[in-house]
Amino acid sequence: MAFEKVKRSDNYSEWYNNLVKNADLAEHADVKGCMVIKPYGYAIWEKMQAQLDKMFKQTGHVNAYFPLLIPKSFFEKEEKNAEGFAKECAVVTHYRLKVDENHKIIVDPEAKLEEELIIRPTSEAIIWNTYKGWIQSYRDLPLLINQWANVMRWEMRTRLFLRTSEFLWQEGHTAHSTAEEALVETKQMLDVYAEFAENFLAVPVMKGVKTENERFAGAVETYCIEGLMQDGKALQMGTSHFLGQNFAKAFDVKFQTKEGKLEYVWATSWGVSTRLMGALVMAHSDDEGLVLPPKLAPIQVVIVPIYRSDEEFEKVSAAAAAIKKQLEALDISVKFDNRDTHKPGYKFAEWELKGVPLRIGIGPRDLENGTVELARRDTKEKSVVAIEGIDAHVKNLLNEIQEAIYNRALEFRNTSIHQVNTWDEFLDAINNKGGFVSAHWDGTGETEEKIKELTKATIRCIPLNNPEENGNCVLSGKPSSQRVLFAKAY
Amino acid sequence: MAFEKVKRSDNYSEWYNNLVKNADLAEHADVKGCMVIKPYGYAIWEKMQAQLDKMFKQTGHVNAYFPLLIPKSFFEKEEKNAEGFAKECAVVTHYRLKVDENHKIIVDPEAKLEEELIIRPTSEAIIWNTYKGWIQSYRDLPLLINQWANVMRWEMRTRLFLRTSEFLWQEGHTAHSTAEEALVETKQMLDVYAEFAENFLAVPVMKGVKTENERFAGAVETYCIEGLMQDGKALQMGTSHFLGQNFAKAFDVKFQTKEGKLEYVWATSWGVSTRLMGALVMAHSDDEGLVLPPKLAPIQVVIVPIYRSDEEFEKVSAAAAAIKKQLEALDISVKFDNRDTHKPGYKFAEWELKGVPLRIGIGPRDLENGTVELARRDTKEKSVVAIEGIDAHVKNLLNEIQEAIYNRALEFRNTSIHQVNTWDEFLDAINNKGGFVSAHWDGTGETEEKIKELTKATIRCIPLNNPEENGNCVLSGKPSSQRVLFAKAY
Repeated sequence: MAFEKVKRSDNYSEWYNNLVKNADLAEHADVKGCMVIKPYGYAIWEKMQAQLDKMFKQTGHVNAYFPLLIPKSFFEKEEKNAEGFAKECAVVTHYRLKVDENHKIIVDPEAKLEEELIIRPTSEAIIWNTYKGWIQSYRDLPLLINQWANVMRWEMRTRLFLRTSEFLWQEGHTAHSTAEEALVETKQMLDVYAEFAENFLAVPVMKGVKTENERFAGAVETYCIEGLMQDGKALQMGTSHFLGQNFAKAFDVKFQTKEGKLEYVWATSWGVSTRLMGALVMAHSDDEGLVLPPKLAPIQVVIVPIYRSDEEFEKVSAAAAAIKKQLEALDISVKFDNRDTHKPGYKFAEWELKGVPLRIGIGPRDLENGTVELARRDTKEKSVVAIEGIDAHVKNLLNEIQEAIYNRALEFRNTSIHQVNTWDEFLDAINNKGGFVSAHWDGTGETEEKIKELTKATIRCIPLNNPEENGNCVLSGKPSSQRVLFAKAY
Repeated sequence: MAFEKVKRSDNYSEWYNNLVKNADLAEHADVKGCMVIKPYGYAIWEKMQAQLDKMFKQTGHVNAYFPLLIPKSFFEKEEKNAEGFAKECAVVTHYRLKVDENHKIIVDPEAKLEEELIIRPTSEAIIWNTYKGWIQSYRDLPLLINQWANVMRWEMRTRLFLRTSEFLWQEGHTAHSTAEEALVETKQMLDVYAEFAENFLAVPVMKGVKTENERFAGAVETYCIEGLMQDGKALQMGTSHFLGQNFAKAFDVKFQTKEGKLEYVWATSWGVSTRLMGALVMAHSDDEGLVLPPKLAPIQVVIVPIYRSDEEFEKVSAAAAAIKKQLEALDISVKFDNRDTHKPGYKFAEWELKGVPLRIGIGPRDLENGTVELARRDTKEKSVVAIEGIDAHVKNLLNEIQEAIYNRALEFRNTSIHQVNTWDEFLDAINNKGGFVSAHWDGTGETEEKIKELTKATIRCIPLNNPEENGNCVLSGKPSSQRVLFAKAY
């Protein structure tokens, strides 16, 4: 493949950018801060969506759609939420263009909105404004609603998938009659995200709670899953928020209890985004290109014919078609790359770049032997296997690859957690080793901020079910009852 | 059900608005011109999406995602497109809010964009700007790409689903090396839309070409499907545009031909939107509520238990669960309405309102006889059938209902096409009969405009494969070689 090759070990960031571009996942749009998700990248995102959507529905949620634009007055009702997002908001001020005397298109100054509209950075405000009309009694609860949508958070420094002004996501917004029920929902959705990350993305994650500094603006508690990328940086991969009664109070959403009292409704919200595409690339890929876990690969198996003559091509094609049919009967997605414009070597490199988990090569000699050559993308192992029974063999192998990719990431993650007890150890771990640093912290926002200033490391989370352990804060030396996870992060 | 009942025959428009609201399909948002698509409505839209997406993929298309915001300078490159949409454009002028000294959120005057951004009313501009980077040679063609997205066209007078400022749609954008290939694509997608409308929405459609006045801004030719609603008004349900080289020229997208020449690329675009939800409601529903064709009904069968005692409830529930399981094994979606808060009569009315195609009632006496009561939503016919073999019976009946709904709409449409030859006949048909009026027209935009002014009727389309017939324009009396279809339209 003719593309700029930068090694992962030489410049991780450039390697990532090139890979996203060369594997046809996405590119920067000519609109500042925005991206174009290309068909191959979008096909992966569609597989993620389908699986997540299924899991949301299995846990009782339904989808709906709320407006893109939020009147400024709604937006400012929940103060912390508004202040948290104010600096990133794209603002619509006019509703019409016109053609001026020079045939140029200009904004029509007479079409100024009385009230500015914000492009949703997140939809709590518009949704809770709507829920007010939907909730009167405990019988109307819970509301378990999800939305697939685009959102906009203005960014000055962007990186494809990880940080763009517009991105695609899902946002769940639920309403409950008790705090307990809302908390159960918050944690349930965190578990759904963790299951998805581990069993589909093949990325092991830490489940935990954010500190107050890192909490979602407007939340009482933010739960998160944190993954580790191959450069040792952490990536927040999903969040689930317990919103308490903050939005119910801001939008005056009360319900009549069974006992006839009026109470404010309890809320959660939770989301994952196209950022998961970035996680997928960063967690597994190598210098040859993408490494996709089979469960999310748009093409799970590619068949490349090896031939010299038309006659050979015909024979090989017939065998390939038969194998393709067998595999598809097992719900395996197969591409037969019968392009006559490229040689096998070129095709091998292209499908490696695109991360297809398994390649089948078939040539005339293979046919004579009743075999084909299988090549695994993850380990690059090759094996010769019989055509007879190849469907079951491939099915098993794809499961094995899915597991192997996860296990490799798990091994990496587990060996990248460094327990430290002193500030020197902390600095050494953060600056030289990377990964998660497990350290005592005095629980104050000031110390957290200071550590961030000094090292760029942030507290990724306080792990769930964290063991109690007495110790001293690595920076302040003050007493601490538990370790928290620090890391440099995307 | 306790909701305002307005009869379809008394006030069609109010009947429609109430129905959309009461059946929980959608409601007006507190954001001017925008709607909230409620879970039940969104579930129908999801079924539409899934089927359309499947049909797009079967015809070789892939999905991608392009930015929401379009720089004004891109937008104005294709002049006709820009002028056509300028009056409906929401404009982003600022990218930040701030909190002022009084703790109020205001637009930060220092965060004014150098160039205004338009929220996409349609994406030709941003997509062709992107295609420029993707197309160099004939080998890069065709590009067959679709996008599922929200778009914004500012509306002063809105109606749920039919006309809102923001709506959801899909827009296909394809690029080809020859005009012929692009035309084949344009017509193929029109056929896909017609097949979807007739076989899934159960709405018969007229396929045709738009006149120049009604053409998409920037298209060489606009093909359309036109359905007829129960009040005799037409509804444009989908369009497929042959864009010629207009956008390729505006964005300078050329490709090298096999012969080594540089030529502009040929384009199509095609779309359907949540407007189809409006078509679905308007084409089939009645005074009791929605009538959903089984293929698009989120719940195809509802089982309502009839009982007096807990013991009876348990017996009936066991039978219902067994039937549910049998039906689900045939991919039929079933809801068992076991709420103890409402009586059967209330439930019957509720599921009629929501358009569930088939209701199964089971009581203790039914169980003794080994039967259940089936009630069809479309004809309201009831029948007693044996539980033995109910799965196949229901499966067939759902197919029968799908066909019956289509046939009723087809019968209505076919008897609502009025051939007229004089202006008096034209006026009588348009004003008193409704439906499509098939009339001779002199082919000029002036006459078309004048007829619109005089009667509000527009030319819905020049039907495909229209027979040649000599005649005289109903208004001007000038010679004409074919009839065209007029109607009042949404």
